[in-house]
Amino acid sequence: MNTAATDALLKRRQRLLGPMSTFYDEPLHLIRGEGVHIWDADGREYLDCYNNVPHVGHCHPRVVEAICSQASMLNTHTRYLHENILDYVDRLTATFDASLSSAIMTCTGSEANDIALRIAQSVTGKTGVIATDHTYHGNTMAVAQLSCTNPPPGGHWPNIRHVPAPDSYRGLRNEAGELDSTAFTASVEQAIYSLEEEGYGLSAFIICPYFANEGFPDVPPGWLDGAVAAVRRAGGVIIADEVQPGFGRTGTHFWGHQYADIIPDIVTLGKPMANGHPVGGVVTQPSYLEAFRRDFRYFNTFGGNPVSAAAALATLAVVQEEGLMDNAQTVGEYAREGLLALAERHECIADVRGRGLMFGAELVVSRECKTPATALAKRVANGMRQRGIILNFLGIHYNTLKIRPPMPFSQANVDLMLEVLDVTLTDVMVHTDIEAGKNPGS
Amino acid sequence: MNTAATDALLKRRQRLLGPMSTFYDEPLHLIRGEGVHIWDADGREYLDCYNNVPHVGHCHPRVVEAICSQASMLNTHTRYLHENILDYVDRLTATFDASLSSAIMTCTGSEANDIALRIAQSVTGKTGVIATDHTYHGNTMAVAQLSCTNPPPGGHWPNIRHVPAPDSYRGLRNEAGELDSTAFTASVEQAIYSLEEEGYGLSAFIICPYFANEGFPDVPPGWLDGAVAAVRRAGGVIIADEVQPGFGRTGTHFWGHQYADIIPDIVTLGKPMANGHPVGGVVTQPSYLEAFRRDFRYFNTFGGNPVSAAAALATLAVVQEEGLMDNAQTVGEYAREGLLALAERHECIADVRGRGLMFGAELVVSRECKTPATALAKRVANGMRQRGIILNFLGIHYNTLKIRPPMPFSQANVDLMLEVLDVTLTDVMVHTDIEAGKNPGS
Repeated sequence: MNTAATDALLKRRQRLLGPMSTFYDEPLHLIRGEGVHIWDADGREYLDCYNNVPHVGHCHPRVVEAICSQASMLNTHTRYLHENILDYVDRLTATFDASLSSAIMTCTGSEANDIALRIAQSVTGKTGVIATDHTYHGNTMAVAQLSCTNPPPGGHWPNIRHVPAPDSYRGLRNEAGELDSTAFTASVEQAIYSLEEEGYGLSAFIICPYFANEGFPDVPPGWLDGAVAAVRRAGGVIIADEVQPGFGRTGTHFWGHQYADIIPDIVTLGKPMANGHPVGGVVTQPSYLEAFRRDFRYFNTFGGNPVSAAAALATLAVVQEEGLMDNAQTVGEYAREGLLALAERHECIADVRGRGLMFGAELVVSRECKTPATALAKRVANGMRQRGIILNFLGIHYNTLKIRPPMPFSQANVDLMLEVLDVTLTDVMVHTDIEAGKNPGS
Repeated sequence: MNTAATDALLKRRQRLLGPMSTFYDEPLHLIRGEGVHIWDADGREYLDCYNNVPHVGHCHPRVVEAICSQASMLNTHTRYLHENILDYVDRLTATFDASLSSAIMTCTGSEANDIALRIAQSVTGKTGVIATDHTYHGNTMAVAQLSCTNPPPGGHWPNIRHVPAPDSYRGLRNEAGELDSTAFTASVEQAIYSLEEEGYGLSAFIICPYFANEGFPDVPPGWLDGAVAAVRRAGGVIIADEVQPGFGRTGTHFWGHQYADIIPDIVTLGKPMANGHPVGGVVTQPSYLEAFRRDFRYFNTFGGNPVSAAAALATLAVVQEEGLMDNAQTVGEYAREGLLALAERHECIADVRGRGLMFGAELVVSRECKTPATALAKRVANGMRQRGIILNFLGIHYNTLKIRPPMPFSQANVDLMLEVLDVTLTDVMVHTDIEAGKNPGS
């Protein structure tokens, strides 16, 4: 039940912003955030197990200070010289392979991917693009074409190909017991053939190397080798969308593609890059950037301005200096062990997976049939929210717990989350059984 | 001559960001801004007659305070309820015709125009778009298609039509002595016919109602009536790009389309909206927004976040409460009178025009032939920069002085600008004459 104040806000919002989904049956009206906690208008505290944008924690004082200090000194565009953007790009590119040494700063990850597609076009002279069928790379007209989950009205452009996203829980395994990549490689090869046949040619293969929206299937390093080799043979470029796995989130590697053991030609960045300040970016090799700048004469008024660069620089410094990648590794491992223990008591928890502080588990109706429990997942998210824990769901079947907290998440935070998940699952299952006519006591 | 420090910065910038133009032969390395002034790394002060992004003045304390205060309290996305975005959209839409009562907040004007094109597609079911041949509406792949000055590699999409931009200095005049609109209307009608013939149909006619990039030709209210009527007859929608004339800049009206005396279906906003914080937006009627949200399920992670909304709200409040629109009117009039007086002594100054605090004059080789003095314009911009005044050039022939300072610009600022312009023109003309082999004393 919403309070009268929430209902009034919802009504006003509908009038001014149009129909927009809120995550929960009872929308959250937040007013404060600090570290891994957020508070609603009634003063109630929530543990944030979901938001990756406040990467180093809500309102991290060092990022806030960087923004305030620079905003009161100067905020202008990059036609004038300024050291902030240079200091940032220097520090940022130092985390990549030596070939990836130059960058464009944008305001959003969508803008970054929109540029990446055009860099690929400049470099290859082709326009064909391959993406997976359960990905999301952003919201511009061009980038929205990459999505099958939100298909564009009027259909996809004829130069776009989608390949089936990997499903490590249900997919075929090879002799080593790992998810087989043969079918994926073959579908990329087929897409290349089709693009060439129809005259578009291959420009780019764009992937989140962690397959975050696909439900982060468990794919080992080297799994993409076949697909990458096929793309390179055809003269295409590899775009790694690091908006989700980047900046140390997966614990063992600063970038998702480093774990996947590939070196992309173009890397795109967004959400966590400046802890919530609107910053995105594209990192690539200098010759690629030069080709793009020559062909497109791109300029972004707000991109890389002194305040945005200061916010991004402070965020990166905090990640590196406060050991947040190691924390993601340790705390993520601990959380997955806890989830596995919980799975012993909750039949619906299957296939605990993920790395670092982006992980979860599929909720299923039956482990034997691996039937996705999509409706249950929604109830669990709402039940957790009622109990003060914020998380959500994603994946091919929208049944995978999506746990992706700010990076300073602690083992104590994990304990609380699992405790509440235990209670919520028990409660939701009881109600599900009652609705199904079963006697919960039997 | 650049200093060694500037040369080092330029080299580092080239390495990290690739080839990017700076406005002047000697690039500016800025480190501080306040009101209408900016300072370089050597402590030299400049009068800013160019930057419209810091709309209410560089580092306006009220905007800085709004950003700092909200950034230290909460910054999250619009899936959660928050009052800032509602307070802003309420106050913003109050400045428009009653039909334009709902909005989407984005991070850039480019994102806003990218959305506007899709709103038009949702509403009309068509994809044909008409723009002028000297406009610029932004930098996404889709929006860049609207530009002829930066033509996209591979050519324009077949659903885009360009109509000749008006030129009030050289164009045909009607009996009332005003720029004739017959040819413009006819070219819009022809574009509509062509789009319908080729099966795209008419979706939208997008214009800056002030024709800012076209060199702000002097077109009277009602001038667009014929074109607008043709668009409406064909079932298309009108998109007014208010990124440049909006927020009171033109002095008499809060929005450029209000002076032009048209009511657009969609309005797009950007640059000055939050005084440099990355904020853009789209204002439209609720049924349009609903159609777009239904068809495209658009979500923008950073758009309308509590900090961005606070920055935009503070900026709008300052414009309204500090009387900046009236100031633009008074000071702009004063400046144009001064430019006209200067034109009496400088033959190259022709056709002083503009409104409010976005104005200038064409620089010509000869008033009789109206030959654009494009090279001279560049020398003047560099000469002014050397003398501590920041301005630039634009227009169809890139020979129109572009004077567009922060809105708190004063009459004293005008006096200084004109005084330096006088000296610079004299100096530049002497050097031009010497190079041409003329004796300046003769």
